[in-house]
Amino acid sequence: MVEQASDELMEGADTEDIAFLVVGDPLGATTHTDLILRAVEKGLQYRVIHNASIMNAVGCCGLQLYSYGETVSIVFWEKDWKPESFYDKILVNRERGMHTLCLLDIKMKEQTIENLMKGRPIYEPPRFLSASQACKQLLEIVQQRDKDKTTDSDLTPDTVCVAVARVGASDQKISVATLEEMCDVDMGSPLHSLVIPGNMHPLEGQMLTLFAVSGRVRQLLEEIEKR
Amino acid sequence: MVEQASDELMEGADTEDIAFLVVGDPLGATTHTDLILRAVEKGLQYRVIHNASIMNAVGCCGLQLYSYGETVSIVFWEKDWKPESFYDKILVNRERGMHTLCLLDIKMKEQTIENLMKGRPIYEPPRFLSASQACKQLLEIVQQRDKDKTTDSDLTPDTVCVAVARVGASDQKISVATLEEMCDVDMGSPLHSLVIPGNMHPLEGQMLTLFAVSGRVRQLLEEIEKR
Repeated sequence: MVEQASDELMEGADTEDIAFLVVGDPLGATTHTDLILRAVEKGLQYRVIHNASIMNAVGCCGLQLYSYGETVSIVFWEKDWKPESFYDKILVNRERGMHTLCLLDIKMKEQTIENLMKGRPIYEPPRFLSASQACKQLLEIVQQRDKDKTTDSDLTPDTVCVAVARVGASDQKISVATLEEMCDVDMGSPLHSLVIPGNMHPLEGQMLTLFAVSGRVRQLLEEIEKR
Repeated sequence: MVEQASDELMEGADTEDIAFLVVGDPLGATTHTDLILRAVEKGLQYRVIHNASIMNAVGCCGLQLYSYGETVSIVFWEKDWKPESFYDKILVNRERGMHTLCLLDIKMKEQTIENLMKGRPIYEPPRFLSASQACKQLLEIVQQRDKDKTTDSDLTPDTVCVAVARVGASDQKISVATLEEMCDVDMGSPLHSLVIPGNMHPLEGQMLTLFAVSGRVRQLLEEIEKR
């Protein structure tokens, strides 16, 4: 929308103040950078009002922001399209002891192949990748690589994971479970995100314990703390 | 303060709502995690109101948040203490094409050795590492390593750098210069931060051009874009 309608959005901005509201921080990705560049080109002044976004509000789970490596995106797997690049990025972060924030796929304005081919502007309902579904995909990679013995998988079904849902809302939810357990944790309505921790400071481990869903993960967190 | 006075801070919280205000997002580091853990221990309910912080507001310079690697801290160098660990982390990020946000040192409640030894509670005025001073330190490392030929320095005096000051305030300033030029750029009053870009998307390069301080850096950005 932003990319296509920037002229329309900026109509009248030469004579009066206009505002463009977004969810999260406006400059997380280049989407709105483009809007700024077009405004500057038109000789318009702009001002960005920053806001909390998942990129920093994810601190709610207790893992400190300074210890995050590259953020990754986990996409919906399709029958014939199961990319694993996010997994390798998680491994790179963990090698350096860093946590990984995994943003989960959002499918808006999808068209069925039939509607697409017939040029019918009929769109499927929006879909949001859940933390449990993302964990199922991760677990499938772990198990496949373990079987292939091609690469050291590093993650195991017992790896401690953090799921966060509706961060900042009054019904925000945080759950800490093993990768395997998380496949069955219902985080409720979207949006969800997932965090794969790296090395943990004792205070980080203690915070995660507050959100542990099982005795199993509580025990694993205790063991990590003792190391 | 937070660590020492948490009991005092939470006094009365069992019978009424109390609030604790901080600059930026409350959960960037483990400082306030400790406060939450103590509140939970006391059986107190808590709620975190997230806020923009430099960790996401740094997006104002046009480099997208998803492309940042590990955040580093650059400390004030002393006569006999010139740590370089932040530099190596910048190199690791750049190797992977990632940008690096460099948080700059803040010295609060410093005591002179004399006052410290005599137990006098007299503190020096607060000091804030400026972007230009941080760049001087970086440049010194670059030049030293170049002379030693021990490691490939990667950064050069011509590396494009981004300085941001007072982000979010009405007098926010963003400057893009070469590392060498930035040593002489006056960003005004604190707080400053510094960004060392990794690989850039064309839109990111175009945004940086808006803040270029010299023809030299504008030319370098053009060359990067053409690659």
